[in-house]
Amino acid sequence: MSASIGLQLPTINDVQRAHADIRTMIHRTPILQSRYFDQLCGCELYFKCENFQKTGSFKARGACNAALKVADTKQIITHSSGNHGAALAFAAQRLGFQATVVMPTNASEVKKAAVKSYGGIVVECEPSNQARQQRCDELIATSGAVFIPPYNHSNIIAGQGTCALEMLESVPTLDVIVTPVGGGGLISGTVLAAQEASSPTVVVGAVPTQANDAARSLEAGNIICDDSPDTIADGLKVSLADLTWHFVSTGVSTIHSVSEADIEHTMKMIWQRMKIIIEPSCAVTLAAVQQNAHLYAGKKVGLILTGGNVNLDSLPWTSH
Amino acid sequence: MSASIGLQLPTINDVQRAHADIRTMIHRTPILQSRYFDQLCGCELYFKCENFQKTGSFKARGACNAALKVADTKQIITHSSGNHGAALAFAAQRLGFQATVVMPTNASEVKKAAVKSYGGIVVECEPSNQARQQRCDELIATSGAVFIPPYNHSNIIAGQGTCALEMLESVPTLDVIVTPVGGGGLISGTVLAAQEASSPTVVVGAVPTQANDAARSLEAGNIICDDSPDTIADGLKVSLADLTWHFVSTGVSTIHSVSEADIEHTMKMIWQRMKIIIEPSCAVTLAAVQQNAHLYAGKKVGLILTGGNVNLDSLPWTSH
Repeated sequence: MSASIGLQLPTINDVQRAHADIRTMIHRTPILQSRYFDQLCGCELYFKCENFQKTGSFKARGACNAALKVADTKQIITHSSGNHGAALAFAAQRLGFQATVVMPTNASEVKKAAVKSYGGIVVECEPSNQARQQRCDELIATSGAVFIPPYNHSNIIAGQGTCALEMLESVPTLDVIVTPVGGGGLISGTVLAAQEASSPTVVVGAVPTQANDAARSLEAGNIICDDSPDTIADGLKVSLADLTWHFVSTGVSTIHSVSEADIEHTMKMIWQRMKIIIEPSCAVTLAAVQQNAHLYAGKKVGLILTGGNVNLDSLPWTSH
Repeated sequence: MSASIGLQLPTINDVQRAHADIRTMIHRTPILQSRYFDQLCGCELYFKCENFQKTGSFKARGACNAALKVADTKQIITHSSGNHGAALAFAAQRLGFQATVVMPTNASEVKKAAVKSYGGIVVECEPSNQARQQRCDELIATSGAVFIPPYNHSNIIAGQGTCALEMLESVPTLDVIVTPVGGGGLISGTVLAAQEASSPTVVVGAVPTQANDAARSLEAGNIICDDSPDTIADGLKVSLADLTWHFVSTGVSTIHSVSEADIEHTMKMIWQRMKIIIEPSCAVTLAAVQQNAHLYAGKKVGLILTGGNVNLDSLPWTSH
């Protein structure tokens, strides 16, 4: 990785340091296997269960790492459709900080409640990338809080990379790691962690077809933003930015797109067969592997189940 | 335990032998912990996740053990509201046997489908204990199949006891193990396994108030049957019988009763907080501990989460 493009790019060393730093704040989540899904997909699947992570998603990793590195103030602020907000509130609570989270009005009540349960302050805004940032900037101007963005930040990317680092420690011979792509923090950290693999590990992304700007960006060779994505995978409604685009454009081989129907079906199958609760956003990875089974035949494929925060009162298959 | 009452009572040796025999057929399921529920209940909880077991419930243990010990025929038969049926079909498939399962007409479609998915034959009957046995007897008379009852059987009890055996291997200092009580196979095996604990381990039961015949039996000093129980905990709609009554009456200190509302609420809380899918039947144990927290303060309490087979299209909280 070259730093010549003028960005503050994290390195594999930052991922390793993050792992040591956040170890006591997070869970080392289990990796599950499923004979049923192995047979269905014709490969060997390893499900990294970040739905069991503190705050119910991998976002606790980046948030803890970034919050730990804040100096001079105990006020931090972010915008988030949900999981990063709860994660930042959690990290703040653990460190004795105050967290403010700007959330779109259409964020789920469960996710707003989670932020509040960790002592975070929720401030609502219109559901657009631009509105989020604007509201944040206004609050920063008056409070002096340090902004910790949800993904486009060196310490966030390094923190998220600890997830793939653990996968490769446990299963060093993974051929592929597939992650969902929203803003790209997780897949960027995964690209970094894959550098430490003892054998080559390919990093692949998956997105909803109805929020596939990352896939279109990779194809076009430059960032394409979609400010009105429409998907049940609510964690993936954001766009790549300069830091994460660097890692996606240089380290990700493919980004698969999957339909809303396939996301819902795959999410339900994982609930039914594996007896675990996962968010719609997680289901894109398994759906992508199943649909592109010829690419993964016989391979060892790691999938990151990114979170488990769903509103149980309103499930996709009960609201049709 | 005395065998003088004329019953073929299993012993702790049978549990240990069962564990060795079925080891390659079942999962050693994980034991999860939850800081949230520990704080809520004021004790140290250990959740044994039989929802992750083969066939989605602990019933795979007893069914495998009993099927392994069948000689002279390859036809086995049982009646079951669901999980034992799927477990027996699974065991039969693994051993090259044919399983027939008599199921009440009101058993969930998911549970019928599970039996069929393992190659079992489903035969329907009226939803009463008497009707089940009668239909079974008719089929045995014509087919010569060996009957493997869901709970009142020495090899079934020994098999179910392997669950608590594993808990005590992993957490030898458990003060209490709490199990749901339906026909009593699981709690009977747990009473046996508790004899192997290095320190005294109390065995406690939990039932729905609307299917509390086991609790009333323990209080009365003799078996009370309820042939029309009405509870969302569909695995617990059956009554104790002579073998399981022996273990309940001699080895179980208390059986707590919990309301339908508490079962539903606790089930949903476990889904939400632990991100795992459990059946309503499992929720009775945590609900019982929470309601009787003064009895368990500061203790190490093992809870058996018995299964995870639910119909995701019809959840208690979405069908009100």
